[in-house]
Amino acid sequence: NQVSFKSQTLSVLVFPRKLKYLVMLHSGAGMSEPSPAAAPERLPFSQVTQEDLVFFKKILPGRTITDPDLLESSNVDWLKTVRGSSEVLLRPQTTEEVSQILSYCNSRNLAVNPQGGNTGLVGGSVPVYDEIILSTALMNNILTFDRISGILTCQAGCVLENLSLYLEERDYIMPLDLGAKGSCHIGGNVATNAGGLRLLRYGSLRGTVLGLEVVLADGRVLDCLATLRKDNTGYDLKQLFIGSEGTLGFITAVSILCPRKPKSVNVIFLGCETFEQLLQTFQLCRGMLGEILSAFEFLDSECMRLLVTHLKLPNPITECPFYVVIETSGSDPTHDQQKLHNFLEEAMASSLVSDGTVATEDSKIKTLWSMRERVTEALTHEGFTYKYDISLPVERIYQLVTDMRTHLGGRAKSVVGYGHVGDGNLHLNITSPAKDPALLAAIEPFIYEWTASCQGSISAEHGLGLKKRNYIYYSKPSQAVALMGNIKAMLDPKGILNPYKTLPDKLK
Amino acid sequence: NQVSFKSQTLSVLVFPRKLKYLVMLHSGAGMSEPSPAAAPERLPFSQVTQEDLVFFKKILPGRTITDPDLLESSNVDWLKTVRGSSEVLLRPQTTEEVSQILSYCNSRNLAVNPQGGNTGLVGGSVPVYDEIILSTALMNNILTFDRISGILTCQAGCVLENLSLYLEERDYIMPLDLGAKGSCHIGGNVATNAGGLRLLRYGSLRGTVLGLEVVLADGRVLDCLATLRKDNTGYDLKQLFIGSEGTLGFITAVSILCPRKPKSVNVIFLGCETFEQLLQTFQLCRGMLGEILSAFEFLDSECMRLLVTHLKLPNPITECPFYVVIETSGSDPTHDQQKLHNFLEEAMASSLVSDGTVATEDSKIKTLWSMRERVTEALTHEGFTYKYDISLPVERIYQLVTDMRTHLGGRAKSVVGYGHVGDGNLHLNITSPAKDPALLAAIEPFIYEWTASCQGSISAEHGLGLKKRNYIYYSKPSQAVALMGNIKAMLDPKGILNPYKTLPDKLK
Repeated sequence: NQVSFKSQTLSVLVFPRKLKYLVMLHSGAGMSEPSPAAAPERLPFSQVTQEDLVFFKKILPGRTITDPDLLESSNVDWLKTVRGSSEVLLRPQTTEEVSQILSYCNSRNLAVNPQGGNTGLVGGSVPVYDEIILSTALMNNILTFDRISGILTCQAGCVLENLSLYLEERDYIMPLDLGAKGSCHIGGNVATNAGGLRLLRYGSLRGTVLGLEVVLADGRVLDCLATLRKDNTGYDLKQLFIGSEGTLGFITAVSILCPRKPKSVNVIFLGCETFEQLLQTFQLCRGMLGEILSAFEFLDSECMRLLVTHLKLPNPITECPFYVVIETSGSDPTHDQQKLHNFLEEAMASSLVSDGTVATEDSKIKTLWSMRERVTEALTHEGFTYKYDISLPVERIYQLVTDMRTHLGGRAKSVVGYGHVGDGNLHLNITSPAKDPALLAAIEPFIYEWTASCQGSISAEHGLGLKKRNYIYYSKPSQAVALMGNIKAMLDPKGILNPYKTLPDKLK
Repeated sequence: NQVSFKSQTLSVLVFPRKLKYLVMLHSGAGMSEPSPAAAPERLPFSQVTQEDLVFFKKILPGRTITDPDLLESSNVDWLKTVRGSSEVLLRPQTTEEVSQILSYCNSRNLAVNPQGGNTGLVGGSVPVYDEIILSTALMNNILTFDRISGILTCQAGCVLENLSLYLEERDYIMPLDLGAKGSCHIGGNVATNAGGLRLLRYGSLRGTVLGLEVVLADGRVLDCLATLRKDNTGYDLKQLFIGSEGTLGFITAVSILCPRKPKSVNVIFLGCETFEQLLQTFQLCRGMLGEILSAFEFLDSECMRLLVTHLKLPNPITECPFYVVIETSGSDPTHDQQKLHNFLEEAMASSLVSDGTVATEDSKIKTLWSMRERVTEALTHEGFTYKYDISLPVERIYQLVTDMRTHLGGRAKSVVGYGHVGDGNLHLNITSPAKDPALLAAIEPFIYEWTASCQGSISAEHGLGLKKRNYIYYSKPSQAVALMGNIKAMLDPKGILNPYKTLPDKLK
C-alpha cells in the first residue's frame, strides 16, 4: 500500500547531526509517533571513531559514506516521520564484506541499522540514533534463475521491480507485488515479510522463499540458500529471519519460487452500496472465479475523494460508498473472460454491485490499479496521517472504520479505509491538518483494544519497527514475547542489530 | 507416500520389555536402519517410578496406559523397523493436562516421546528406549471453522481424513493430502512438515498453517493460535515447531487455511517412453493447464511391476517405462475439460506420451490415484526396503535412480523410483530379500554424496527422526546445525522432548 517511488528523490535538508532522537514536522508528512513508541534512551553502544572509519574505508574503499548530504536520505524514512543521526553509511557488495563489517562492529559494540530500499512505514528502516547504516544498495546481482523450476536466486539489494522485469522476459513473475516496487529491495521485503497485492493468490513469503543467506550479528555467515521446494532436514532456520526486521541477522541473498507469467490478466473496478454487499461480492467471486482470482482489494468513498482531489485521478465509475478492484490471472483468455462475464452477470442480477468497468489491456489495467495503489500517496497531501495496518476476520474489517468515525466524531479531518479484503487486512488512516496529540490520544489505545477484542493483529504486513513495537502485547501473549527476547539474545547477544526495533522496550 | 492405514491394525506381538534398543526382523517389513544412525547410548534420564504413575493416574484417570499389550502398537513404528520399550502411554484430552504432564516430566527429568498417528517413516514417532509416550489420540476436537475465510482450528489429534470429510461437507478441503490420511494426526503432520500430494497447488504448511498452540518442555503453554492470514507482530514463533518433529514442543492445537472444494476434478494417467519426455510433458502441462494443475506425480515400470504382482492392481494403460498421474482441480468443468483436451491433443501430437486414460468420476479417479498412492504398500511385500526421500532439481531426479542401478549392479532385488515431479521430490526405494549390510554399504554414503553434489536434500518431506539424523550434514552446513542445537537448548534445556531425534549425535 505504498506509492511507486521510482522517480522520486527525497529532498535534501540539513539537520543538526547529534546524538538525539529528532522528529520532523514536514509539509506533506505526518508525524504519527505516539508517545509510548517514542524512542527509548540511547543504549550504551560505542560511538564511531576515526579508527573505525579507517577500518571501514580499508574494507569498502569509496563505499564508506560520511558526507552528511549523502547520508541524509538514509537517515530519514519515506513518510518523513522518523529520522536518525547516523554519520556513516556503508555500501558493501559482497557477503564477505558484510561479514567482516559485522564481525568488527560486534567486537567494537557498534550498533548497526540494516537498510534496503528504505520504504518501510513503521520506522524500522532508519537509524534511531547514530547506528551505522549498512545498506544493501550495491548488492544487486541476480545469481541464478532456473527456467524449469522458476527458482530465482539473487542478492538482497535487488529492486523488486527490476526482478519483475527480469522474470517477465523469461515468462515468470515475482510472487509478490507492492506499490513500493520501484524502490524496495527483495532483502527488505523478506526482512519485513511483505504482503502486498498478490498474497491472495501466491501465498506469503513464508511459503515462497526457499532459501536465505544471512550474516549473523557476530559476522558468521549462515548459508541456508537452498533452491529446493522441499527440505525437511532439521529446523527451518530461515523462517527466523523472515519478518524479523533486521534484528536477528542481515539478509545477503534470497532464493524464491516464482510463478509462471499468466497468459491472461483482467481487472474489474466495481462499486458497492454497502460493505455487506462488498463481502457478498467477495464470496461470489471466490466461488465463480475460483482459481483465476488473483486480487480482491477495496477502497472507500473517502479514499476516492482524496484520489480525485489531490491526484486528479478521475473516478472510472459512478460515485459509490465502496469500490472494489478485482484481478484475475489465468492461462486461457477465453475461459477467463467467460468466467468474468458469468460473475459480472450474476453480481449485477443480484444487485450486489451498482456500477463497474472491465480492463483487459495493459494501460487500462494500470489505470484501474492506480486507484488502489496510489491511496497512500494521496494521503500524504492531507497533512498529518495516523496510519494503521490491521488484520481482522474479514467480516469485521470495515466495522472498525465506522466505529472509529463514530468514536472520533468531528476530531479527525478524515477517516479512510482501504486494503486487502482477500487477506482480512485493513489499512485505516486518520488524517488531521497538523500533529494533534489529543486526536492521537483518542485513537490509541482505542484502536488496539478494538483489534485485540477481535483477536486481530495490530500489524498485518508493515511490521512493528520503531513505531509499533510497544503495542506487541495487544497481539501476542507475554510468553511469546519473552521467547522472542530469548531468540534475540541468542542470535545477537550484544543487541547491535537494528536496536529499538520490533521488540518492546520492556518485557512483561 | 504411505498406504491408507484406515482398516489396518498392527499385529500384537510380545516383546521383551527392557531398556534396550531392539530392531525387528519381521516378514513384510524392512529394517533400513544403517549403522551410523543406530541409537546412541541411553541418555541419563530418570526412569518411571510407581510414584510417577500415581501422579499420572491422578491427572489422567483411565488414560494412563501401562498394559504391555496396549502399549505395543505405540512402541513400534509403521514400517516395523524401530521399536522402543516404553512402559507408559499417556492420553491427555486437554492442553492443560499436557502442560501438567510436561511440567512434571521436566522437573523429574523424564524423557517424553510425543506421538500422533505413528505413521512416520524415519523412526521419529516411537520411543527409542523407555521414553513416556504422550499421545494426541484423544485430543481430536474441531474447535472452530469459519465458513467465510475457510480457517479451521482443531486439536492436534484430529485424523487428517476426518478433517477432510468435515470440510468437504462445508465445501472446503484440507490443503494437504497424503496416503496415511486415515491414521495420521494433523499435529503430527505439522510437526513433520508433511508435504504430500497437494503441495504443488496449495503450497507447504509453512504458508497454510496460521497458528499453533504448543506446550513447551517445561509445561509453559505458548498460545500462537492465531486465525489471521497476515500477522507481522514480532518473530513468527510457530515456524520453529513446524517440522521440528516434536523435539522443541508438543503441538496441542492447529489453525489452518483451507481452500475451497474444487467444483471439478479430473485425473489422467499417462505413459512416457523416457524420463526426458516425462519432463517435457510436465513443462507442457504447466503451460497449458496452468492454474488448474493440482498434482503431477510419477512412478516407473518397476513400481508398476510391484503393484501388479503384489497388490493385483491392473495396469490401466499399455506398458511403459514411466507413468504419470496428473490431477486438475478447477471451478468450471467445461473449461477444465477443454484445457485437458487441448493438453492431451498437444502431448499426443508431439509424441511426448504413448498411451493414457482420463477419469472424471470419483471411483475411477480413486483407482488411478491408487496406482501412485499404494506403491509404498506394494514395496512392503518385497522383503527389506531401504527407503530414501530426496529433493533434487527436477531435471536430475531420475538420474539418481539410474545411477543407483548402475552402481549396485545385481546386488539389489529392485531399485524403484516414484514421487512428486512437481516438487522435485524423488522416493527412491531399494529392496532386498533380507537385511543386507553389504548392500547398505553400497547404497550409503553413495546416495547422500550424490544428493549433496546436486545441492539436494536428503529428506524432502519425511524428516530426519531417528534414522536420518546423523546425515544432516549432507544437506546443512555445520553453522546451521550448531544454531539448531542452540535453539533446542533454549527451548528444552534438559532435552526431554523426543530425544535421539532430528539433531545429530555430535555437533561438528
